[in-house]
Amino acid sequence: MMKLLVLNGPNLNLLGVREPGVYGSDSYEAVCKRIAERAEKLQIEVDFAQSNSEGGLIDRLHACMGAYDGVILNAGAYTHYSYAIRDAIAAIRLPVVEVHLSNIHAREEFRHTSVIAPVCRGQIAGFGPASYLLALQAFAEMAAEAE
Amino acid sequence: MMKLLVLNGPNLNLLGVREPGVYGSDSYEAVCKRIAERAEKLQIEVDFAQSNSEGGLIDRLHACMGAYDGVILNAGAYTHYSYAIRDAIAAIRLPVVEVHLSNIHAREEFRHTSVIAPVCRGQIAGFGPASYLLALQAFAEMAAEAE
Amino acid sequence: MMKLLVLNGPNLNLLGVREPGVYGSDSYEAVCKRIAERAEKLQIEVDFAQSNSEGGLIDRLHACMGAYDGVILNAGAYTHYSYAIRDAIAAIRLPVVEVHLSNIHAREEFRHTSVIAPVCRGQIAGFGPASYLLALQAFAEMAAEAE
Amino acid sequence: MMKLLVLNGPNLNLLGVREPGVYGSDSYEAVCKRIAERAEKLQIEVDFAQSNSEGGLIDRLHACMGAYDGVILNAGAYTHYSYAIRDAIAAIRLPVVEVHLSNIHAREEFRHTSVIAPVCRGQIAGFGPASYLLALQAFAEMAAEAE
Amino acid sequence: MMKLLVLNGPNLNLLGVREPGVYGSDSYEAVCKRIAERAEKLQIEVDFAQSNSEGGLIDRLHACMGAYDGVILNAGAYTHYSYAIRDAIAAIRLPVVEVHLSNIHAREEFRHTSVIAPVCRGQIAGFGPASYLLALQAFAEMAAEAE
Amino acid sequence: MMKLLVLNGPNLNLLGVREPGVYGSDSYEAVCKRIAERAEKLQIEVDFAQSNSEGGLIDRLHACMGAYDGVILNAGAYTHYSYAIRDAIAAIRLPVVEVHLSNIHAREEFRHTSVIAPVCRGQIAGFGPASYLLALQAFAEMAAEAE
Amino acid sequence: MMKLLVLNGPNLNLLGVREPGVYGSDSYEAVCKRIAERAEKLQIEVDFAQSNSEGGLIDRLHACMGAYDGVILNAGAYTHYSYAIRDAIAAIRLPVVEVHLSNIHAREEFRHTSVIAPVCRGQIAGFGPASYLLALQAFAEMAAEAE
Amino acid sequence: MMKLLVLNGPNLNLLGVREPGVYGSDSYEAVCKRIAERAEKLQIEVDFAQSNSEGGLIDRLHACMGAYDGVILNAGAYTHYSYAIRDAIAAIRLPVVEVHLSNIHAREEFRHTSVIAPVCRGQIAGFGPASYLLALQAFAEMAAEAE
Amino acid sequence: MMKLLVLNGPNLNLLGVREPGVYGSDSYEAVCKRIAERAEKLQIEVDFAQSNSEGGLIDRLHACMGAYDGVILNAGAYTHYSYAIRDAIAAIRLPVVEVHLSNIHAREEFRHTSVIAPVCRGQIAGFGPASYLLALQAFAEMAAEAE
Amino acid sequence: MMKLLVLNGPNLNLLGVREPGVYGSDSYEAVCKRIAERAEKLQIEVDFAQSNSEGGLIDRLHACMGAYDGVILNAGAYTHYSYAIRDAIAAIRLPVVEVHLSNIHAREEFRHTSVIAPVCRGQIAGFGPASYLLALQAFAEMAAEAE
Amino acid sequence: MMKLLVLNGPNLNLLGVREPGVYGSDSYEAVCKRIAERAEKLQIEVDFAQSNSEGGLIDRLHACMGAYDGVILNAGAYTHYSYAIRDAIAAIRLPVVEVHLSNIHAREEFRHTSVIAPVCRGQIAGFGPASYLLALQAFAEMAAEAE
Amino acid sequence: MMKLLVLNGPNLNLLGVREPGVYGSDSYEAVCKRIAERAEKLQIEVDFAQSNSEGGLIDRLHACMGAYDGVILNAGAYTHYSYAIRDAIAAIRLPVVEVHLSNIHAREEFRHTSVIAPVCRGQIAGFGPASYLLALQAFAEMAAEAE
Repeated sequence: MMKLLVLNGPNLNLLGVREPGVYGSDSYEAVCKRIAERAEKLQIEVDFAQSNSEGGLIDRLHACMGAYDGVILNAGAYTHYSYAIRDAIAAIRLPVVEVHLSNIHAREEFRHTSVIAPVCRGQIAGFGPASYLLALQAFAEMAAEAE
Repeated sequence: MMKLLVLNGPNLNLLGVREPGVYGSDSYEAVCKRIAERAEKLQIEVDFAQSNSEGGLIDRLHACMGAYDGVILNAGAYTHYSYAIRDAIAAIRLPVVEVHLSNIHAREEFRHTSVIAPVCRGQIAGFGPASYLLALQAFAEMAAEAE
Repeated sequence: MMKLLVLNGPNLNLLGVREPGVYGSDSYEAVCKRIAERAEKLQIEVDFAQSNSEGGLIDRLHACMGAYDGVILNAGAYTHYSYAIRDAIAAIRLPVVEVHLSNIHAREEFRHTSVIAPVCRGQIAGFGPASYLLALQAFAEMAAEAE
Repeated sequence: MMKLLVLNGPNLNLLGVREPGVYGSDSYEAVCKRIAERAEKLQIEVDFAQSNSEGGLIDRLHACMGAYDGVILNAGAYTHYSYAIRDAIAAIRLPVVEVHLSNIHAREEFRHTSVIAPVCRGQIAGFGPASYLLALQAFAEMAAEAE
Repeated sequence: MMKLLVLNGPNLNLLGVREPGVYGSDSYEAVCKRIAERAEKLQIEVDFAQSNSEGGLIDRLHACMGAYDGVILNAGAYTHYSYAIRDAIAAIRLPVVEVHLSNIHAREEFRHTSVIAPVCRGQIAGFGPASYLLALQAFAEMAAEAE
Repeated sequence: MMKLLVLNGPNLNLLGVREPGVYGSDSYEAVCKRIAERAEKLQIEVDFAQSNSEGGLIDRLHACMGAYDGVILNAGAYTHYSYAIRDAIAAIRLPVVEVHLSNIHAREEFRHTSVIAPVCRGQIAGFGPASYLLALQAFAEMAAEAE
Repeated sequence: MMKLLVLNGPNLNLLGVREPGVYGSDSYEAVCKRIAERAEKLQIEVDFAQSNSEGGLIDRLHACMGAYDGVILNAGAYTHYSYAIRDAIAAIRLPVVEVHLSNIHAREEFRHTSVIAPVCRGQIAGFGPASYLLALQAFAEMAAEAE
Repeated sequence: MMKLLVLNGPNLNLLGVREPGVYGSDSYEAVCKRIAERAEKLQIEVDFAQSNSEGGLIDRLHACMGAYDGVILNAGAYTHYSYAIRDAIAAIRLPVVEVHLSNIHAREEFRHTSVIAPVCRGQIAGFGPASYLLALQAFAEMAAEAE
Repeated sequence: MMKLLVLNGPNLNLLGVREPGVYGSDSYEAVCKRIAERAEKLQIEVDFAQSNSEGGLIDRLHACMGAYDGVILNAGAYTHYSYAIRDAIAAIRLPVVEVHLSNIHAREEFRHTSVIAPVCRGQIAGFGPASYLLALQAFAEMAAEAE
Repeated sequence: MMKLLVLNGPNLNLLGVREPGVYGSDSYEAVCKRIAERAEKLQIEVDFAQSNSEGGLIDRLHACMGAYDGVILNAGAYTHYSYAIRDAIAAIRLPVVEVHLSNIHAREEFRHTSVIAPVCRGQIAGFGPASYLLALQAFAEMAAEAE
Repeated sequence: MMKLLVLNGPNLNLLGVREPGVYGSDSYEAVCKRIAERAEKLQIEVDFAQSNSEGGLIDRLHACMGAYDGVILNAGAYTHYSYAIRDAIAAIRLPVVEVHLSNIHAREEFRHTSVIAPVCRGQIAGFGPASYLLALQAFAEMAAEAE
Repeated sequence: MMKLLVLNGPNLNLLGVREPGVYGSDSYEAVCKRIAERAEKLQIEVDFAQSNSEGGLIDRLHACMGAYDGVILNAGAYTHYSYAIRDAIAAIRLPVVEVHLSNIHAREEFRHTSVIAPVCRGQIAGFGPASYLLALQAFAEMAAEAE
């Protein structure tokens, strides 16, 4: 059974509280619950982790080696400048799917660039919490194709 | 029952032939078939259209008004400079999900910018033909949330 | 009697439907009618053409040689990147007046640049459908000055 | 009866003398006379003012509040860098039509940008002295539409 | 016997009419005739096609697969921004020689960049109609080297 | 007793009238009165001057030498491009505190740059009329520290 | 009674030690003491926190919700690139006043940009430790205005 | 006998007072006297004018038509952004020699660009007050060559 | 006896695992051992520290004051954007030698810029683990020169 | 009989040795021999020169005046930055055809710009040694057209 | 008696031959003669040197140490990119006056930047051969001031 | 026994004379002697060469093929723009270590870019003459690793 880490970056712990017009009104816990339920249906085992710290996220990514089959990563604002997280993703050699709640390409200029994209498998952005569900589905599709 | 148009832009008719290392070895027809089967499972009605012409794609988008509930659009290279297609998407006021076979953010600089993203609902890139399947799923999620 | 072509580019067929806050609520047909009436008053013969295709607009511009005394051109979004249309205008050696419904210089950055302006006679932007009427007037002024 | 100020910026007092190949050979006075005649025909009352000073133009714009229904402004070279005039236009809340004798978009790079355009109603450029006549017409059209 | 398509893009149908100071005074037909004669001498079979439409050029390039041994392409102004044509050239995997009548590197800034060059075999620019003859010669040289 | 000039640049005479959403609804006179009262409490003597003219502001800055102990300067839009005012500030060798009603760093791109900042003592922005009061306080703090 | 957090970012713990020519010779503790005394006079309750970690600062900002009425933030060098801190400030919806010891606009190019400014209430820079005192005063002014 | 205007822009009235390390310690009057003496030796008649106002300088330039044979212009900081002064120089069609006390090309980046240079006869920079003397000499050379 | 800290930044704990083609196949521990042995030969005392956290690295640098004579720093990807680490290096006033395993100037564009270089003593890049040995040697050379 | 100089710039003496994957495996001498043979067939007299020195190439170009009817120039890397060679080409007023072995427009960014192109007759790039043969042919075509 | 080297860079040996519209019709020898005569009048000893080689110019500059009191340098096109010549000027610590025949600030963009200006004493441009005479005069003025 | 060429570029012959604050007070000869002594200790044979000419350096690099095992190259200011030297390094396929006396990354912007770095083995900068000694050591380390 495939095992994934759903890893969330800075400010995602405030989901529901933070700019609900942009990020929706579901709490972080509610979103995690919804992801867990869908994962179960797709027969994927998921763990969750969140950190506001760039170094914390890197530590977590390193710890995925040997423990998970892939990572669903919403790196929050670090997406746009953390070359250190980019290097971490490249280092661990696991498939990482980049996820965003909002359509980052439709917002401020600085959010249009993802410095981690070049080392991620793919990107899903703009569907609110459903972005995570689609990422789960993406792993399921990849698994099906690999069979 | 939701009805969607899967609209493909320039060079996507050559799928399977064109740079298979980047775009995969399935033919355009095979990809369409796979999309149609998934759509059926998700109880979504889908039509397909492809054009190498910017104007042709705009005409097609215009014709979607009143005929479809949304569009899955892979605008190919027009993604990166066709402000005319962008205006068409904004004009028709239907949800459009932007799809790419390859992870455009991981390729040449000019492919990192999507001028249509600011008027699309969301973006899915990098999963090969499965990008389209995820877009179908995205519409299904949106429909479920709207209920 | 002076004879002009009023040539409209992509998405202008959707006038009235398309973002009415920006482009007004009159339909394309209504705007054409209003232009025709004013042209009659100014003793100008006008024909109308619209195309969503860059190549179609170029074909139309070519066909103006020997058939019209000038062109009123709203190239829509092609204004901002179609060097091919620019070359067509330079090639046909007829006076072309560039027209925009909205004040393009007051909108998104990419709309501030007109790549066709260097080969046009002048530019009128921001007066809604009246921009076309002013372009008619501009041709009348030019004719009066030439007498 | 509508009352407008025709406000001219730096070097426009030298019309006829200054680079006649670019700006025409009519003197400033002759151009004003032509504008006044047309205004009369359109039943518009016009006053004229010219200043080479950025501050002088701002003072004049301020003084328009309560005194005029709109302004026809040729800000000359200040068009390209005077954010102070831009702020003045935004402050007085009157419709301002931006006018240029030459087609500024067809000349040196620095003339392609109008920093005042974002707060003006519209722009007319490239028709020589007739640009002012078209601006008068533009106010007439706006008035007719508002009725 | 080698078979080539000489494919011309926007505004090249106006050769002889269009800015003769830049592009020469020979008509499109005259240039084609001259190319055909030289091809015959070089024992190359040539067909000719011209389109003002980006999509039309892409369709034509696709149709070359299996029908021609190479393409001599003057993409006109599309050279400078059509990533869609670039993708088409990459997709068809035939040698394409890029040709320009004028020395594009000696003209306006925007003409200095060829977005199709990275997928073309080589570039010949600045020799007027003789650029096409040199491209024929280039194919002859390549054939001789391959023997 | 410390003596300061509160010097205001273009359009600040329209305070209360000008874009009240951005600049507040207090008139220029009311703001001056409020500053004067606070100055009195802080035992600072203040004079006020306002000019819409770049040259006028420079003249005023020059006249401060020998007459004031410092300047509270809101240079309005000149802040963003007047290297002449910058040179004036550097020339007079008095402490100048740069003040802005709005948070210029949170508005349009062009307002993010202050060309006068490198020669000012410090910058206070975003507190509405209270920005001036804080500048008075800043001078009081500097005086206290110098004791 | 208003309660504020004075939050300091990287390297501010070294105040007095670090480049005294730029940042002054008072120690971090001495500066805090001076702030506390002034706060008492202004009847504001203040707490202090400092962290060299971007994530630590974000955690602290999150913890302010419900605990403080506002934040005085000197984000140190993170000011210039931490979009994650910017998102945190936007998320907590408390007034945040941005403070800098030195006049950042007068130093190296990279210090001229504050990526957090667009979500802060205002900015005070260049007054040494007195910048914090002015920020306290700013909160006092805001409170007085709100009454 | 040749007659020239020596026209000085913003802050040059403060010569001797203003940053003597950069601009020297001679007063404006002393410099004028030195210029006048040299002019006499060269049998050139000179007048002097100085203004801190951009508009004032333009007015002065206009007034030179018919009154002077040329202008020695130190436009101060306006050199770097006043397209209005540039237009004035182009308009009056008199030879204008651009002069700077300091070597502007060796100072801050923004001083490296002269927007008036393209319409001036030549540029002399970096010789302190002697720059003016060299400009006088330049006019003498031009006169000698024209004979 | 000279005492140095060898401080490693993000992802360097994965040495040997991480992209061995770029960074070599020796583990972090093996590299440290090799450094320690060389240090001993050079009669330098070395300690080692590694952190994936920007704040953690800053804390470590602060702690070096009074404890070490210098630092050998491989800041990993933080090299390219951490102005906070740059400020820390400037604050502690110890010689810091910047070290990179790969030749950063020969890789992706973003790796060509080191924001910490301006406050470091020197830079050694591209020699794999030997870069650290050369840094030790550099400190030995500096010590020899200082004698 | 037409007489041409084939002038080669830096590193072209290493042809065959230097990056054969890019520049081919024929030696400089072999390439010269092939050019000479073709020239003979075309009844063109050719001389050869090569220099690694920018000044040496300029000297050679100067010496062509009165000695040759044209130059085939491969300026190697100087193509991309030698404004001095550009000036030399402009100075000698002979037709110069720019030649490159590789398709410079398809390689590193810095090779996309030719600073000498604006003063050359045309450019041929990407055909390996055959580029020179095509340049000979180009001179032959020009001669035929001139007859 | 002051002794100067007049050092000319690439293509200046072609004076009179090279683009006479830009550089005048006097030969290099004639210009040198004119300079020598003026130098004699000013009691300055002058030598002349010219080289098309960057390295040759550097060698010459080095040789000036101990042999000349200053250099009049027209570095030709090297002015715009030769940081090596810039370093040579800085190294020799002699006053160097930068001279240009044409007004480089009024020509192509690339000629607007002088990379050697920051280490030169001053710049004289645009007066044709008289630029050199003015440079002689500049040295005379400097000598007079130093007395 | 390993044999290396220590190759120095423009102005390095002036070591000791040239800006001693930046480059140190040891003469070129003294530095060479120090390098030679260290080389002897490391059992490396070294030769020395210096040239102010770009072409001279290229010639020297070419001559290294078959004669040396590697090159220690300080290309001086050519480092920042000589693509011709870059091509020479790539052509000769010997390991080249790039060396700088000063920390080029800490000086003027233009010195931050090394166009030769992408084809060098590694870079050592900022240690004064010791940079060369470290480069010798680097070759020794590489040799030891290769064993």
